[in-house]
Amino acid sequence: MPRSHGSEIDTLIQLLAKLPGLGPRSARRSTLQLLKKKDSVMVPLADALKMVAEKIVICDTCGNIDTHNPCHVCEDARRDRTTVCVVEDVADLWALDRSETFKGLYHVLGGTLSALDGIGPEELNIAALIDRVETGEVQEVILALNATVDGQTTSHYLAERLSGSGVKVTALAHGVPVGGELDYLDDGTLAAALRARGSVS
Amino acid sequence: MPRSHGSEIDTLIQLLAKLPGLGPRSARRSTLQLLKKKDSVMVPLADALKMVAEKIVICDTCGNIDTHNPCHVCEDARRDRTTVCVVEDVADLWALDRSETFKGLYHVLGGTLSALDGIGPEELNIAALIDRVETGEVQEVILALNATVDGQTTSHYLAERLSGSGVKVTALAHGVPVGGELDYLDDGTLAAALRARGSVS
Repeated sequence: MPRSHGSEIDTLIQLLAKLPGLGPRSARRSTLQLLKKKDSVMVPLADALKMVAEKIVICDTCGNIDTHNPCHVCEDARRDRTTVCVVEDVADLWALDRSETFKGLYHVLGGTLSALDGIGPEELNIAALIDRVETGEVQEVILALNATVDGQTTSHYLAERLSGSGVKVTALAHGVPVGGELDYLDDGTLAAALRARGSVS
Repeated sequence: MPRSHGSEIDTLIQLLAKLPGLGPRSARRSTLQLLKKKDSVMVPLADALKMVAEKIVICDTCGNIDTHNPCHVCEDARRDRTTVCVVEDVADLWALDRSETFKGLYHVLGGTLSALDGIGPEELNIAALIDRVETGEVQEVILALNATVDGQTTSHYLAERLSGSGVKVTALAHGVPVGGELDYLDDGTLAAALRARGSVS
């Protein structure tokens, strides 16, 4: 097969193609773009990857991924330590934190219960959550799992495990997404939004 | 603003978001995926970026981007040195070479003529092309520019510049893309395919 460039460039393209959202074609485009912006993007990106890879740790308290342990969230003295928001994944923690509405702490489960994939409570970061709740400072646990079957199964399981502990257990509200058009929403969301309707006057 | 992770991670997300096809959201997803595959993807990617950034050169002969100079294409003794295929960009060179139909050499212009953007013949790698043609070994120049207005303008300009040199000047055929459905094609393509129709029996 004829080769129009060296194997180092091939290796780079193949590695970039492993990023979510990039396939072989966009990995090639990315490579060319990087080569054109060598000093402003390519070298800084290599350095950033290396530095983050070296510094990265998982927070012992909440399971967040950060360059510190405890992480920036757990360390922040201004946060309300009586409320813990339970999420499936670090991506959910970052998403909730970007909304700047919640000022408490988080707990990352690392997934959901799944009979199909053979994931039971032992595979998730649940024992540590129960420990945190039992140490006494926590007063409310907010279950912020995805509104999927597995997410809701996990929510129910956690609600049951926490029922005797004396803490308040809440869950995110279901309803119409802000900016969402009714015509495009599924029946389940519309039904939930109707059931949870509130007074406006 | 509350911060859920360190500034090194922010820097990495911002750099990844500069890749074509990745926005802030997919850059965050990529970052998390990279952190989960630290040893298999993240560190190798950092190394590959660094190595390619260090080794990268532009081929003096054709303008290809490679880790060698002359590049793999110009260096390859099995290639037909009498045919030169003119392309706008390195991405086009790589795309044509993947088709494995063309076994000659290339010449990368680095763009197209554009009155709007103020790009004249001096801004492109045209003088070097004329030089290559005049050295005598080249017998055919294939114009493989994009079928855009600027691409076609540039094609016409090059055809005129090369008209006195004695080399054969050809251009890519227009027609129905392989696998394309007529119903989805524009009128211009259909008209071109009709005009260039060939006998099948």
